Amino acid sequence: MEAVFVHPVRVYYQDTDTGGVVYHASYLNFMERARYEWLRELGFTVDTMIRSHKMIFLIRSLSIEYFRPAVLDDLLDITVKTVEIGRSRITLQQQIMREQGTLASATVHAVCVGADTLKPISIPAPLRQKIEKQPS
Amino acid sequence: MEAVFVHPVRVYYQDTDTGGVVYHASYLNFMERARYEWLRELGFTVDTMIRSHKMIFLIRSLSIEYFRPAVLDDLLDITVKTVEIGRSRITLQQQIMREQGTLASATVHAVCVGADTLKPISIPAPLRQKIEKQPS
Amino acid sequence: MEAVFVHPVRVYYQDTDTGGVVYHASYLNFMERARYEWLRELGFTVDTMIRSHKMIFLIRSLSIEYFRPAVLDDLLDITVKTVEIGRSRITLQQQIMREQGTLASATVHAVCVGADTLKPISIPAPLRQKIEKQPS
Amino acid sequence: MEAVFVHPVRVYYQDTDTGGVVYHASYLNFMERARYEWLRELGFTVDTMIRSHKMIFLIRSLSIEYFRPAVLDDLLDITVKTVEIGRSRITLQQQIMREQGTLASATVHAVCVGADTLKPISIPAPLRQKIEKQPS
Repeated sequence: MEAVFVHPVRVYYQDTDTGGVVYHASYLNFMERARYEWLRELGFTVDTMIRSHKMIFLIRSLSIEYFRPAVLDDLLDITVKTVEIGRSRITLQQQIMREQGTLASATVHAVCVGADTLKPISIPAPLRQKIEKQPS
Repeated sequence: MEAVFVHPVRVYYQDTDTGGVVYHASYLNFMERARYEWLRELGFTVDTMIRSHKMIFLIRSLSIEYFRPAVLDDLLDITVKTVEIGRSRITLQQQIMREQGTLASATVHAVCVGADTLKPISIPAPLRQKIEKQPS
Repeated sequence: MEAVFVHPVRVYYQDTDTGGVVYHASYLNFMERARYEWLRELGFTVDTMIRSHKMIFLIRSLSIEYFRPAVLDDLLDITVKTVEIGRSRITLQQQIMREQGTLASATVHAVCVGADTLKPISIPAPLRQKIEKQPS
Repeated sequence: MEAVFVHPVRVYYQDTDTGGVVYHASYLNFMERARYEWLRELGFTVDTMIRSHKMIFLIRSLSIEYFRPAVLDDLLDITVKTVEIGRSRITLQQQIMREQGTLASATVHAVCVGADTLKPISIPAPLRQKIEKQPS
């Protein structure tokens, strides 16, 4: 489980603030995009998850550290790496990178819940297998 | 129907961009807040509309003109004025003001639709009466 | 000036609202991304504009019509087409498309201003030529 | 330093997502609004900080735990409590409350930096005194 998925994100005006840098909450948007592109690459679109597996992921908690700011027009790499996978919980490590340098680093705890009940359920076996099969 | 509703909005970093001013789409957020506070003052909360009247408002079109920029920490007044009210359509005029000066001006066309069907339905009579009763 | 630039945009949770569709102001974000990718393709990055030409574009006004809603996970095509180009003003037509269908359509009026003065200046000749040279 | 500042925030469509709840990054926006209203109450507007004290606060890191979701039209209370104050660093605890219940809880580490240099500087004495003087 050492594989790292990378999703590129361009910074536009909408992501910045008057301090001249990317607004601190915008990084959470970038990380969300990367997580769903990672799931898509594993064959799990939102549609697959909700309709076929009647599940969604909820974020239980996250922590993020900001080292250096991104600015307008930066082309960032947003990474996703599985740190731990339980029955219904998954822990991801995500980084915001610019040319090999890490601008911010986050740990995201998500939980697999029933799309209707919002109660924790097991991560679907096919998805678990895909995640565990990632080369380390 | 000359009455003008006014809702105050403070500008925070989240509303600005690296150009040093309020991001152009943020004004649409400010205007949405004013519209729902106006409806609330008329006795129509989101809950009243969806549960009691099984209706929501959809935006069909809008146009906005930007005259002068708002900046961080500005305390703005967002206005709502009914221009025209049809069976299911309503036209609003909204302004973004700072100390009597108009920074931006918009016309918003909304339509009353069934909360489930999303098909146009008549604006509920009690709401129409409240809107038409506003002093001119 | 009939050439149409197309920029793909994926819809994530961050772009939607509890009505089950894309939030109406999110389309303005999508259109901004397409405009800056169009300028980039013409050789004008934000950096080129600000540092080499000491200019930025400001939005003077825009109007948008919503026909049908986009939803989570849609892959949209955002178009940019020059409608008119004056000394310092430019009018663009932008569409939000999904599989050949138009979900929303907008007209955007921008003006070229000095990056420091924010006063209207001529659109730089190389950029004007690039825009006018686009095949029709 | 046990005093708790409370800032009310109404939830609009713009804060929600198609999952039917408040989008997870929106809570960071709510918390930012509360922090700046807290500083304003202490007599420190953005203007006072930047112009008179040549300082701004940067967020170094934050962690947030989500317990229960907020939904459209909720009236939330966002709290700010100082946990620790160093020479240039300050640690805040913030909660998102609805009718006495805690929906989310966060710890925010900020640092006082020169408005131009972005290098850590001492928190201005008058601000420090105001924060330390808060009843416990």
